[in-house]
Amino acid sequence: MTDPAALLAFADELADAARAAILPYFRGEHGLENKAAAGFDPVTEADRASEKAMRALIEARFPTHGISGEEFGEKPSQDGYLWALDPIDGTRAFISGLPLWGVLIGLSFEGRPLIGVMDQPYLGERFRGFPGGAELVTRDGVRPLKTRSCAALGEATLSTTDPYLFKDAEAEAFARVRQAARLQRFGCDCYAYCMVALGTIDLVIESGLKMHDVAALIPIVEGAGGRMTTWDGGDALRGGRVLACGDARVHAEAMALLRG
Amino acid sequence: MTDPAALLAFADELADAARAAILPYFRGEHGLENKAAAGFDPVTEADRASEKAMRALIEARFPTHGISGEEFGEKPSQDGYLWALDPIDGTRAFISGLPLWGVLIGLSFEGRPLIGVMDQPYLGERFRGFPGGAELVTRDGVRPLKTRSCAALGEATLSTTDPYLFKDAEAEAFARVRQAARLQRFGCDCYAYCMVALGTIDLVIESGLKMHDVAALIPIVEGAGGRMTTWDGGDALRGGRVLACGDARVHAEAMALLRG
Repeated sequence: MTDPAALLAFADELADAARAAILPYFRGEHGLENKAAAGFDPVTEADRASEKAMRALIEARFPTHGISGEEFGEKPSQDGYLWALDPIDGTRAFISGLPLWGVLIGLSFEGRPLIGVMDQPYLGERFRGFPGGAELVTRDGVRPLKTRSCAALGEATLSTTDPYLFKDAEAEAFARVRQAARLQRFGCDCYAYCMVALGTIDLVIESGLKMHDVAALIPIVEGAGGRMTTWDGGDALRGGRVLACGDARVHAEAMALLRG
Repeated sequence: MTDPAALLAFADELADAARAAILPYFRGEHGLENKAAAGFDPVTEADRASEKAMRALIEARFPTHGISGEEFGEKPSQDGYLWALDPIDGTRAFISGLPLWGVLIGLSFEGRPLIGVMDQPYLGERFRGFPGGAELVTRDGVRPLKTRSCAALGEATLSTTDPYLFKDAEAEAFARVRQAARLQRFGCDCYAYCMVALGTIDLVIESGLKMHDVAALIPIVEGAGGRMTTWDGGDALRGGRVLACGDARVHAEAMALLRG
């Protein structure tokens, strides 16, 4: 098995390439298209340029690794390593000029999350998760990431990207947790999970997630001491309904409310 | 009357002082307190330090100017000039580690908005509005602000800080506009109005605003070519229910839907 530190250094190269590909498009012409037959599912030239740049680097350096990317699909793994790439998580924020989108780079080995990077090019922030820890790298230096203690949901800050994405029973489940929490913040996509790792938000609840939405975030949240699972306590790498918490007590309380 | 350019340069000094006062508290210990008897209305040492620093500068340089600040109340104007200060607009975002709060510095003369500054210390972004224009100042330079063209609400991106802040008839009015818009973003406080000025968001709808929430933003939105009024088309400086749009056609369509 390759040294995780070497793989993390390579993930930094991927994030650097994505930064260079995306930044010229931010708050400029970005070739917006709608992927959805009905509704609005935006994709831009920036998403495509970011994923292409990362895939080219992986294929050159690790041709036996698999790749699962949001825009260009699946390349099977020949050796158990699988890169999950979301070239811009939060394209809706990106096209709105808001800086809370991010590049997600997750690497799993034989179905288990190994390392993860969430890079915010405009802010120059890079959140890195790895076996045994997590850290935030900025222009000013490196800061270890540690979730904060939170004894109960009544003291917690909750986040989700868009409360209107939940429908029917999911909407009712989310409403139960929302009404129990002290404070709520919306609109953050991957950035909210990194705030859990930083210890400034206590939990994130989302649904309808794909593997490329979560693979990078699990090592960051868990490396910082948090818990990230599906709503029923299962493997978050499956995606779907996901719950990320800084404190296990909040995780247990939220799971019970989500169950109803 | 004092030259508006000199007053804008002085507003920059206020923003510099607020930045220095606030940044040490961001994502650190900030002495959170709850101002509300029921519910949660947070204030921090950073809010107080920011407003104190700005008030001291105004009182020293322009002792006849009035001051209306969120944390330390009203000082009447003796000459028609009134500074409206929100030391941290978006304290909920601030305490959650999210960088979309801002320092709001508005100056009105005889009840009419004259200049406005929205400063985001962590991003190093400063949005400035003045008679005849608006601009964004960053570490990389100065960029003129110009709202974008948007023919109809069906093509528009809508923002509000928290959709659950609207109650009863207000909630129904907001829902009518939300359902007509193409895309919605939440959680941005003052930052959303600056995205209207930048031309990346088309409209912002809020209610329950105070003068210090809006005074700085009117010159920025209108200097960039947008319209900012109350929901019924009145003077936005009154606060309350506020509608800010980049394109007058969207403003007219949203006003009609808000009226019901």
